[in-house]
Amino acid sequence: MAQLNWIRVSYLITTEENPQKLATEIAFEQTVEMPGHLISDPYILEKIVGQISEIQAEGENRYRVTVDYSPDILNGSLNQLMNLIFGNISLKKGIRLIDLTLPPDYLQKFTGPAYGVQGLRSRVGVWGRPLTCTALKPLGCSATDLARICFELSLGGIDIIKDDHNLGNQPRCSYQDRVRLCRQALLRAQEKSGRKTLYFTNINDSPQVMQQQIDYALELGVDGLLMQPVIIGLDYFRSIAENESYPFLLMAHPSLSGAFFTGSEGIAPQVLLGTIFRLAGADAVIFPDFSGRFSFDELTCQQISTNLLAPLGALSPSFPTPAGGITLSNLPRIREKYPEDTIFLIGASLYELGQDLRENVKRFLDQMLSYPLPAAAWATHSGE
Amino acid sequence: MAQLNWIRVSYLITTEENPQKLATEIAFEQTVEMPGHLISDPYILEKIVGQISEIQAEGENRYRVTVDYSPDILNGSLNQLMNLIFGNISLKKGIRLIDLTLPPDYLQKFTGPAYGVQGLRSRVGVWGRPLTCTALKPLGCSATDLARICFELSLGGIDIIKDDHNLGNQPRCSYQDRVRLCRQALLRAQEKSGRKTLYFTNINDSPQVMQQQIDYALELGVDGLLMQPVIIGLDYFRSIAENESYPFLLMAHPSLSGAFFTGSEGIAPQVLLGTIFRLAGADAVIFPDFSGRFSFDELTCQQISTNLLAPLGALSPSFPTPAGGITLSNLPRIREKYPEDTIFLIGASLYELGQDLRENVKRFLDQMLSYPLPAAAWATHSGE
Repeated sequence: MAQLNWIRVSYLITTEENPQKLATEIAFEQTVEMPGHLISDPYILEKIVGQISEIQAEGENRYRVTVDYSPDILNGSLNQLMNLIFGNISLKKGIRLIDLTLPPDYLQKFTGPAYGVQGLRSRVGVWGRPLTCTALKPLGCSATDLARICFELSLGGIDIIKDDHNLGNQPRCSYQDRVRLCRQALLRAQEKSGRKTLYFTNINDSPQVMQQQIDYALELGVDGLLMQPVIIGLDYFRSIAENESYPFLLMAHPSLSGAFFTGSEGIAPQVLLGTIFRLAGADAVIFPDFSGRFSFDELTCQQISTNLLAPLGALSPSFPTPAGGITLSNLPRIREKYPEDTIFLIGASLYELGQDLRENVKRFLDQMLSYPLPAAAWATHSGE
Repeated sequence: MAQLNWIRVSYLITTEENPQKLATEIAFEQTVEMPGHLISDPYILEKIVGQISEIQAEGENRYRVTVDYSPDILNGSLNQLMNLIFGNISLKKGIRLIDLTLPPDYLQKFTGPAYGVQGLRSRVGVWGRPLTCTALKPLGCSATDLARICFELSLGGIDIIKDDHNLGNQPRCSYQDRVRLCRQALLRAQEKSGRKTLYFTNINDSPQVMQQQIDYALELGVDGLLMQPVIIGLDYFRSIAENESYPFLLMAHPSLSGAFFTGSEGIAPQVLLGTIFRLAGADAVIFPDFSGRFSFDELTCQQISTNLLAPLGALSPSFPTPAGGITLSNLPRIREKYPEDTIFLIGASLYELGQDLRENVKRFLDQMLSYPLPAAAWATHSGE
């Protein structure tokens, strides 16, 4: 029975048996972890056990099953939410989580993106067009080399530079050297050009080391942090977003998330990278563009983009940041698919254009601005 | 070319093209994230980029590709290791991580299980037979009810009680009430029986709340913590294991890990739940037994068990803890497959035996002890 103000989760299930059976297993497995005949307390059966609100045939042996879960089970924690909606059943065959709808009361427990689309735009001072972003690379360069690259990219006019997400604390390039020298290089470039480039430094280590790195980034006035929510934990990511003493913009990287997207199981990308990463407080979410070397199709990219930008309680929208194979030649075709509030991330392809990085960025910008931006093919409306 | 003392990762790839192409993409994608022709520095090409050490045909369009990665790239962090061995390529099709071998020098960066098999046995005082474990449930009960269940289970003679992993801080049952009352009930039972039952309390929330809960568990003298490494983050889990001021035994729960095990992609269960959870410091690792309602086969369970117990640097072995569908009737058949150093976790099936939980546990123990334990069918040798 449908429950008002409960967390609503839809699964696409594949089963040769009566779908009611698997649906019931899901509802009990994810909550009380025992069969219903062992429970006599009506409070538990009605208020704790997941309630099946709909089962709809979707083709041969496939059904869309919607289960409502009480938000009272959760302590407002995203970690617990992940466990509730997909924890144990991730280990069962034939269950894919395809939709997640959160009730208004529960949404109020989330701060969401601390800055969001408008906050990020204010920090870089660019409105009325998509933003440009590239990755600082490759791993193995010295901090001095990386700082020089930052300087060139910034003078070319790039809006955002993010560390490659493999950059950590390496022999030739310590975290501290990299961040300090890159930050200094960007300040010098800004003095020269009058334009600001935002710098997102990669944070991925043990909790103790991450805290030291965050403290150092804070001391230096670094603009943003790049973090990998699936690896570091969603609630850890969120704790950084919700820390009011941090001025950091947060960019979420999809590293390791692909495990959820293969085959007919897992969690749909628009739910994990769209809704859930936004709940966790990402101001921008990187995802593999449909054009590129990864496996998302155009519809998936559209749905992620929509879930990041569409109204969601009082949460600010988050920047869709397609990446992973965008080139100067496919950019016009890609650009017209995304709304204006998009960050286009061109990584290796930007370096591939030639040795003059400053010139490469100019060509990237020219290519992006050379056509008037059409109304996006995908109708998304920013919730801000 | 094979690299001595590097991290060795084998992938099973599916491709219709020359496997060298995908292997090269993996080696570059996971390290420098740019094609080789853009890199001129021999240090980067030889010491940073992954080195393909072997490509072996495994059937039509399937190959086993082995890539060596330099441990210098990593700061000793498990989060970084996950990103290095599977981060971006999780988003590519046709790549499954099937084996992970860590060199001795790199292994020394890990403390591993703080107590391990022998430490856990010492705490409960049981040698020479597998251990028994059950889950405290269901969610929705009051703390008083759960404490009463603990008391009965302990008097029945159970070795270990772990919280159901949905138990958090809920309206009818706060974290503090549950842990305090259950701990008290178990101390009372111990006074009466002279036997100890270990209690593992579930910790899954935001970092701030988890810290409060851990502090409270410490204050009460709780024996162990149950945590979900895939959800809370491997390095977070590890930071608890390596904290020398914590006397907690750690039990790892596989919640959400199933996302990695579906189809022909992801990470093989014996690598993630075996090697990696042990590296993270789990003294016991729960995994779905082949008999049960989840999807592992017997070989997978054997491999997980082996990776938890076999020598691995100086790391203590970790208890294989099969669960998820073991019953009194299938226990003899299952028991003979696992080595003596196994914890058998019977959850709902134990409650299903009848209202008298004390009697149910006795039947569980009788069933487990009624046959002399054979030499395990799977040859595993404890590294301790």
